[in-house]
Amino acid sequence: MDFNSDVYIKRLARYYRRLVHLRQYGVLRVSSEELATHIKISPSQVRTDLSKLGVGQSGYGYRINNLIAELEKLLGVDKRNNMILVGVGKLGQALLTYNGFSKYSFNFMAAFDINPQLQGETFGMLLEPVKSIKELPYYLATHKVSIAALAVDPESVQSVVDILVAGGVKGIWNFAPRFPEVPDGVVIENVHIQESLLKLSFRLEESRVENNLTN
Amino acid sequence: MDFNSDVYIKRLARYYRRLVHLRQYGVLRVSSEELATHIKISPSQVRTDLSKLGVGQSGYGYRINNLIAELEKLLGVDKRNNMILVGVGKLGQALLTYNGFSKYSFNFMAAFDINPQLQGETFGMLLEPVKSIKELPYYLATHKVSIAALAVDPESVQSVVDILVAGGVKGIWNFAPRFPEVPDGVVIENVHIQESLLKLSFRLEESRVENNLTN
Repeated sequence: MDFNSDVYIKRLARYYRRLVHLRQYGVLRVSSEELATHIKISPSQVRTDLSKLGVGQSGYGYRINNLIAELEKLLGVDKRNNMILVGVGKLGQALLTYNGFSKYSFNFMAAFDINPQLQGETFGMLLEPVKSIKELPYYLATHKVSIAALAVDPESVQSVVDILVAGGVKGIWNFAPRFPEVPDGVVIENVHIQESLLKLSFRLEESRVENNLTN
Repeated sequence: MDFNSDVYIKRLARYYRRLVHLRQYGVLRVSSEELATHIKISPSQVRTDLSKLGVGQSGYGYRINNLIAELEKLLGVDKRNNMILVGVGKLGQALLTYNGFSKYSFNFMAAFDINPQLQGETFGMLLEPVKSIKELPYYLATHKVSIAALAVDPESVQSVVDILVAGGVKGIWNFAPRFPEVPDGVVIENVHIQESLLKLSFRLEESRVENNLTN
């Protein structure tokens, strides 16, 4: 995936999120200007992006339902996406109780942890209680899993990924601050929490220099 | 900040993280090839980036200590960065117990929540017990805070940001899925958790199509 398409997907994800939000409030149509203002890009960029989806403007703006349907196909959220979670520490629990995923058809079906004290507990949207990590291979053999979210210790990332890959999981969403190797055909998305903090720090430093502030 | 510099900072953050890791293992020097392999970019890109820092290669590769010192200046992590946290739910607790920040000189000095049941609790690296959100303005008036991490409900983001900005905070690290407005001179970094999931989903869908798999 080249860099531009990564940026393009980001914009599509923002359009999608905004449109879902507007639909919740009963809005039926939206103009490129409205989307552009909210997302802080130019209206012409919005029109270029959306014309690639094959959805045109008619009368006043775009039909929100049509746009959402096309974006869902493209983003792969038009079917229920079964997720599992491995690692049910604080971060894993935060993911389970975060209610922003199910509206995009992503749902946590099961969660696994090595800690016996967590096994049998339930959190947030999770239907089944937390299972032992030992049950993971059997679970993967008997269930269709689209995406596995990883919130384990850095030391365990690679070994857990190896189990997931062996079990046929094609999508890995990694929150641990170590980036595992995956074979071709497996897609991994690393969430760079430390990097985000370093970016913020850099931009603060830059802004301080610009404003001639001393710390 | 233009797009290229954003990508440049990401690479600097990756060099920095890798170098800190190598130093922990007692490594003194590193070649552009080694850094390039780990970060999955070309050695010539590494050399271009690092030459901008004014650190050259001598003998076998770069001196790790010199590189780290220059990167720390640039990334703004050469001084202790006082952070506070607002919102001590599961995600906030995960941030407090995550031990990957202090090695970059970032430390949570205090945490605030609206929930009285959390007030007085301590988590992870946090020295002082969780305070009431009502104490936030007074705290900001009496302490130097570089960065405020936000892990509050989407509905509360803007009002908390307004308190932080009024209290002189210049750096905001937002984990909530709503992106607040900030005045000029305040730097905000939004962590896009939903967007990361949508990106993964898109790339999975793309990979499925390429591999002619049906779901």
